[in-house]
Amino acid sequence: MNKFKRNERIAAITQILVNAPNKVFTLTCFTEIFAASKSTISEDLVIVKDIFEKQKLGKIETITGAAGGVKYIPIISLEKKSEIIENLKNELSKESRRIPGGFLYLADILYDPSFVQELGAIFAEEFYSKEVDYVVTVETKGIPLALKTAHMLNVPLVVFRNTFKADDGPTLSIHYASGSDGRLKTMYAPKNAMKKGSNVLIIDDFMRAGGTIQGMISLVDELESTVIGIGVLFEEVMETEKLVDDYFSLFTIDPRKETGHVTIQSHILK
Amino acid sequence: MNKFKRNERIAAITQILVNAPNKVFTLTCFTEIFAASKSTISEDLVIVKDIFEKQKLGKIETITGAAGGVKYIPIISLEKKSEIIENLKNELSKESRRIPGGFLYLADILYDPSFVQELGAIFAEEFYSKEVDYVVTVETKGIPLALKTAHMLNVPLVVFRNTFKADDGPTLSIHYASGSDGRLKTMYAPKNAMKKGSNVLIIDDFMRAGGTIQGMISLVDELESTVIGIGVLFEEVMETEKLVDDYFSLFTIDPRKETGHVTIQSHILK
Repeated sequence: MNKFKRNERIAAITQILVNAPNKVFTLTCFTEIFAASKSTISEDLVIVKDIFEKQKLGKIETITGAAGGVKYIPIISLEKKSEIIENLKNELSKESRRIPGGFLYLADILYDPSFVQELGAIFAEEFYSKEVDYVVTVETKGIPLALKTAHMLNVPLVVFRNTFKADDGPTLSIHYASGSDGRLKTMYAPKNAMKKGSNVLIIDDFMRAGGTIQGMISLVDELESTVIGIGVLFEEVMETEKLVDDYFSLFTIDPRKETGHVTIQSHILK
Repeated sequence: MNKFKRNERIAAITQILVNAPNKVFTLTCFTEIFAASKSTISEDLVIVKDIFEKQKLGKIETITGAAGGVKYIPIISLEKKSEIIENLKNELSKESRRIPGGFLYLADILYDPSFVQELGAIFAEEFYSKEVDYVVTVETKGIPLALKTAHMLNVPLVVFRNTFKADDGPTLSIHYASGSDGRLKTMYAPKNAMKKGSNVLIIDDFMRAGGTIQGMISLVDELESTVIGIGVLFEEVMETEKLVDDYFSLFTIDPRKETGHVTIQSHILK
């Protein structure tokens, strides 16, 4: 049987925990891998836990009881959050991002794997306490962000669609009114997308009036589940009132032409 | 100044490396964080490297020279690969996944965060040597897989679309013929989606005749870049020849009604 040094166990345990955020690993799982006693593994975990706290690399949480074990909760440090905000402000103020009609080009940012990983962790942090069963988004640009949030929370992702394809199987669909122009649109969900009575966290990349979010809420309702949280990356400043009121947005953005430049307000640092 | 024990440095270094696959960290980055000498950090890295190899947790690669440093390459072990194949076979043979028209319901699998993370690592492993600059996919179901592949390769993701929205900015578009029914479709890419002369890896979730992949190749060509690899998760058995010939698929799938059940062949274990 292999014998492992403390150093080695610590490296391996860290890899396993960091690779699967919010997933509970039993002590037995590690005692088996390393042929070590529970008390040895517990000591290893204390070391990992302490250094993660000291270096702000996230939280190692111990769960006691029958379903007990240990898990890694990614937490983005305040310094890192400030850095994210600064970078984003610089990016968004670039002239080349401005699109006629008061829009901003955001696709490259929304599809940046490391960036959405960090943002996913920030959203997850906000909703850890809510016992989320599913993360839901609607295609297309919010998918990476929603996927990373789901990954950080260790729950499945469900994607609602604007079209209905042959390989979607039986679907539920609703009509919803776009908040900006009142135009009627359709949104589809696989009929068996989630267990009835689930807690749903809605994640989307951009909110103007909130019509799309309202549509998602209706569709979750049709699936007999409950929206327990709404997270939006960019919320646009509007003259009129939003259709949704209880949501968490990371940035307020004002790309209106009159001001000549984009202004961004961050809600990350509280 | 904080002094760190070897154990502590190893836990922190592991977290940092695992969190950012394929990203090069200089030794100086670590000597600064831990106020330790280069030789001390090098010794730490040897320990991490060895245990990762021993426990099949991935590869720690040292890059020498001016742009030198160290990076983590996620590698899925053979045991883990066999487990993935087994689970997938069980999942796909469930009667509830069969949709009229010879389709299979795959959305929940394609949106499963941990599953696509593992698959992304498998695709990345296949294309590490190709100097990929961008991963490209077309909306919608392939996005999570493509995102994770891009993350593992530490490159940006570009998503082509089937519609053209106001916030996409100037776009390039092409018509392409669906391989299955010959119907003409449109595909759009942001005009400045990638630097000219880039190496592109195409990732998609499903391939029938290959018309969509052909469309992506044309659009990459219009963007004045080159497709240097094609990765497909599921390839469907066809009576006729595929339109694309040089691709890497993880699974061949035969959901034809006559056979009464789905047969899957894996190309993961070589």
